[in-house]
Amino acid sequence: MTRMGRAGHLTVMLLALPLACAGARAQSDPLAAWNDGPAKQSILAFVKSVTDKTAATYVAPEGRIATFDQDGTLWVEHPAYAQAMFGLDRVHALASAHPEWKQEAPFNAIIEDNREAITKFSEADWEKVVAATHAGMSTDAFREIVRQWLATATHPRFHRPYTELVYEPMREVMDFLRASGFKVYIVTGGGQEFVRAYAERVYGLPPEQVIGSSILTKYQQQDGKPVLMREPNIFFIDDQGGKPVGINLFIGKRPYAAFGNSTGDREMLEWTQAGAGPRLEMLVLHDDPSREYAYGPARALPDTRVGTFPAALDDEAKHKGWTVISMKNDWKQIFAFEGPSGSSQPKP
Amino acid sequence: MTRMGRAGHLTVMLLALPLACAGARAQSDPLAAWNDGPAKQSILAFVKSVTDKTAATYVAPEGRIATFDQDGTLWVEHPAYAQAMFGLDRVHALASAHPEWKQEAPFNAIIEDNREAITKFSEADWEKVVAATHAGMSTDAFREIVRQWLATATHPRFHRPYTELVYEPMREVMDFLRASGFKVYIVTGGGQEFVRAYAERVYGLPPEQVIGSSILTKYQQQDGKPVLMREPNIFFIDDQGGKPVGINLFIGKRPYAAFGNSTGDREMLEWTQAGAGPRLEMLVLHDDPSREYAYGPARALPDTRVGTFPAALDDEAKHKGWTVISMKNDWKQIFAFEGPSGSSQPKP
Repeated sequence: MTRMGRAGHLTVMLLALPLACAGARAQSDPLAAWNDGPAKQSILAFVKSVTDKTAATYVAPEGRIATFDQDGTLWVEHPAYAQAMFGLDRVHALASAHPEWKQEAPFNAIIEDNREAITKFSEADWEKVVAATHAGMSTDAFREIVRQWLATATHPRFHRPYTELVYEPMREVMDFLRASGFKVYIVTGGGQEFVRAYAERVYGLPPEQVIGSSILTKYQQQDGKPVLMREPNIFFIDDQGGKPVGINLFIGKRPYAAFGNSTGDREMLEWTQAGAGPRLEMLVLHDDPSREYAYGPARALPDTRVGTFPAALDDEAKHKGWTVISMKNDWKQIFAFEGPSGSSQPKP
Repeated sequence: MTRMGRAGHLTVMLLALPLACAGARAQSDPLAAWNDGPAKQSILAFVKSVTDKTAATYVAPEGRIATFDQDGTLWVEHPAYAQAMFGLDRVHALASAHPEWKQEAPFNAIIEDNREAITKFSEADWEKVVAATHAGMSTDAFREIVRQWLATATHPRFHRPYTELVYEPMREVMDFLRASGFKVYIVTGGGQEFVRAYAERVYGLPPEQVIGSSILTKYQQQDGKPVLMREPNIFFIDDQGGKPVGINLFIGKRPYAAFGNSTGDREMLEWTQAGAGPRLEMLVLHDDPSREYAYGPARALPDTRVGTFPAALDDEAKHKGWTVISMKNDWKQIFAFEGPSGSSQPKP
């Protein structure tokens, strides 16, 4: 191609570009995995209200903060939190170095794979598991252990890595909010370092945008190099009232939008709603036993420790004007691996 | 002016713009308040090394983190931290509501303005002052109290608001780093909420880029509205080993550049230096009694609680290759209110 020819070609492309873009814009739906309905509409209306410069509800970009719970809101939390499964797997991996665990609860139940005992673990039992599996190494070493586990562990029902069990409609909301000038945070009751180990890869969220529970960390010298050592003591619980506290501690601004699915998220939604101007509060309801799970008010599974969205929270949501997202009715597609679906019906 | 005339004028301006900008660029020095010398050169060389895409030392923008101590590094900390002055002023303001303080240490010393006693306050005394003046209100109310105090309080020597006592050369470094793709954080031993009350206005830093010490905060309902109540108990001390811990907690990335001035910053500089690739560690030495103060190795003032840059740290800096910034020799201008100075000599 001659120089002139190339330049001419470029001119044609440039002239064609605005039209092509306009076409793409008209066709693309930022929430394509959602069925039309009040949930989808409330997201679209909220984003319009905060980004429309001519509206009294306009919010400057630096104020646009959105917070997402993780387990049960962004990805599958049944039959157990991924982090709990990690803890159990780590006990197995470490068992040979701890022969005393064969006679010591709660470790003996895990080693014997006694599932009935495990489902009955108390808070104190889980704290022992966390102390044995999440502490005693540097933060760098811990992230590497988590990364290696995620690369091989699979979910017992879906037989896929946990990181593939992200809800596609929620990822769309995250992307749509970011494209609309929002700064998006995960605010999880789960471990901050655990989630940071994959949040960048899975959600495009850098570590400073992941707020979670944490254990005490101490600065130490090890072989002449400084390390941050993880100690077997709780530092901060980012759950229930801890969520607004964590949001203030890490961000220092009140969210305009908050997404949760359990009583652990109630205070985050209250705190969001109590701010002036347009605010969006949403709760994911797990009511789709065929494509995912049903628990809480749409109970198909016995209530376990995870996923506590009791009927009372459902009532409270209606009373306060929070939007409940029905997985069954509002989500056209649940997981990316399903591929886009034209049907709004759950698979049999 | 006719439409044509205006358009013609605009065209001339637009045509002239690239030339004017090129001229401005060639003339502008991002570190104009610095004298030429090893400190200025080390900053320029560091920024070049991390931003030059052709160099092996190149750092992608998402990794470019810089952390600044505040008191004594970004602004004046003598004769006392601004936050300590705030605490003393608050005790006076609250004294009429606390008649019992007249007989109660350490409050009686403050009410009687017994400066000798105040300079001898123990850590426990200061904790009582903090508990009485920094807790018992919501986070929103506290920020407002700080804002009001800053609007009226003045420094005893410079007779200007504390927020005007920011070191212009350090503000230039902050701006230069930001313009070079860095995300800049304050990492202070001082109170996180205290600094957030002015960090946006003074440094252009949003609250999420201010990491500091904090007291316990509790989520509560007050008159039917949720509030975050500040409790009179320490939650996190962001000093010494707490600085790398806080950096990991809030940012989750290791800084490439860190700036301090005291033993409270040693671990932050160590942690920064221990990372791979190009790193910059700098310590501000207060050796200019005429324009600011001299303490530490350049002692002109008796050592007090603040500003502990002992001779040992000076030795350590030399040994480890950290760059010491001499206020006297490296800074052409110290404060913005002085106006640009052509002289590198301190005023008599």
